Amino acid sequence: MLPEKEYSYEAGFLVVLTAPSGAGKTTIREGILKSHPEIFYSISATTRPKREDEIEGRDYFFVSQDRFVEMIENDEMIEWAKVHDHYYGTPKNFIKENIRKGSIIIMDIDVQGGVNIKKRFPDAVFIFVLPPSFEELGERLIERGTDTMETIKLRVENARKEIGLMYNYNYIIVNDDINQAILETESIIIAEKCCVSRNVDFYKEYLK
Amino acid sequence: MLPEKEYSYEAGFLVVLTAPSGAGKTTIREGILKSHPEIFYSISATTRPKREDEIEGRDYFFVSQDRFVEMIENDEMIEWAKVHDHYYGTPKNFIKENIRKGSIIIMDIDVQGGVNIKKRFPDAVFIFVLPPSFEELGERLIERGTDTMETIKLRVENARKEIGLMYNYNYIIVNDDINQAILETESIIIAEKCCVSRNVDFYKEYLK
Repeated sequence: MLPEKEYSYEAGFLVVLTAPSGAGKTTIREGILKSHPEIFYSISATTRPKREDEIEGRDYFFVSQDRFVEMIENDEMIEWAKVHDHYYGTPKNFIKENIRKGSIIIMDIDVQGGVNIKKRFPDAVFIFVLPPSFEELGERLIERGTDTMETIKLRVENARKEIGLMYNYNYIIVNDDINQAILETESIIIAEKCCVSRNVDFYKEYLK
Repeated sequence: MLPEKEYSYEAGFLVVLTAPSGAGKTTIREGILKSHPEIFYSISATTRPKREDEIEGRDYFFVSQDRFVEMIENDEMIEWAKVHDHYYGTPKNFIKENIRKGSIIIMDIDVQGGVNIKKRFPDAVFIFVLPPSFEELGERLIERGTDTMETIKLRVENARKEIGLMYNYNYIIVNDDINQAILETESIIIAEKCCVSRNVDFYKEYLK
């Protein structure tokens, strides 16, 4: 029987926003989640102490170092990294479970983390967020005020290297205007839902 | 020198809306053109007589049969077909010229025409528009009131066969709600502009 009036795009998938530090991936992700309550945020686990404005299960899963190491050993992490003495990682089950149900999951992650995600989720949608220029990136990091000038210089230098990896990604967004960047991310998600390759089973059903 | 504040996605490309007759591709195309004056419509040439409400150079290029045959012989047509004693075809120059300039061109075409376009423009964006169901398609054709019941039956039968070709396309849109279908088409165009593969030269420039 053909669908009469009701149909749904079946595709569940993972959207990976990657960018050099300061390019604006977190702001884009927050913008998407604000206007799309049906999209889930992939929450990372970390061993670093909770900051005052952070909430367990919203910003991170804050876990002990023992628990984190256990998760790695049990293959519960898609990817993980140790940064400045603290562990950060992406728990696998939450993502797998939601993709299976047909949901869209979004995450923002540094460039190296993105490369690791691709090994485990090659069908994910990889978006590389670029700052409008390296000068602008430096200015934004200065404004943010969380890093020393030395760290900022290092971050900009790293960005130059990392941006060379963009050819491994599906889409590039130049974050010159945050609203435009959010619109482009939203458009990419809607377009991916319409991809023939993500809807094979649905259309088999349609043609029955 | 890196781009300071100004940048532009360089990609010019062709968007091909294909659908069985009655699925709504023309309405979607009109919706896109209405809100996107920067997108060009690929106007077809035809030898059929102009209808009262049609305008030369807006709806079609109305040409004589001799001129049409000449265009075919001069390889000025991407694709052409003879339907009910009249020729219909897509002039090539307008499209090539605008893609070269970085513009986006949209066309709506029947399923067989779409297959022919793909041979000449493999990098175009191919969108297959589906009616919500075959029953609904029949009802729409009856409402349109331009075909006999016999022709309508034939069109629905053809639609069943044609829809099997959708696996050759990049995207599928189920036209259940026209505004949603226009939004999805718009999103596909914006997403394609952000494709890494369509912006290689721009990013080479960025990295310099």
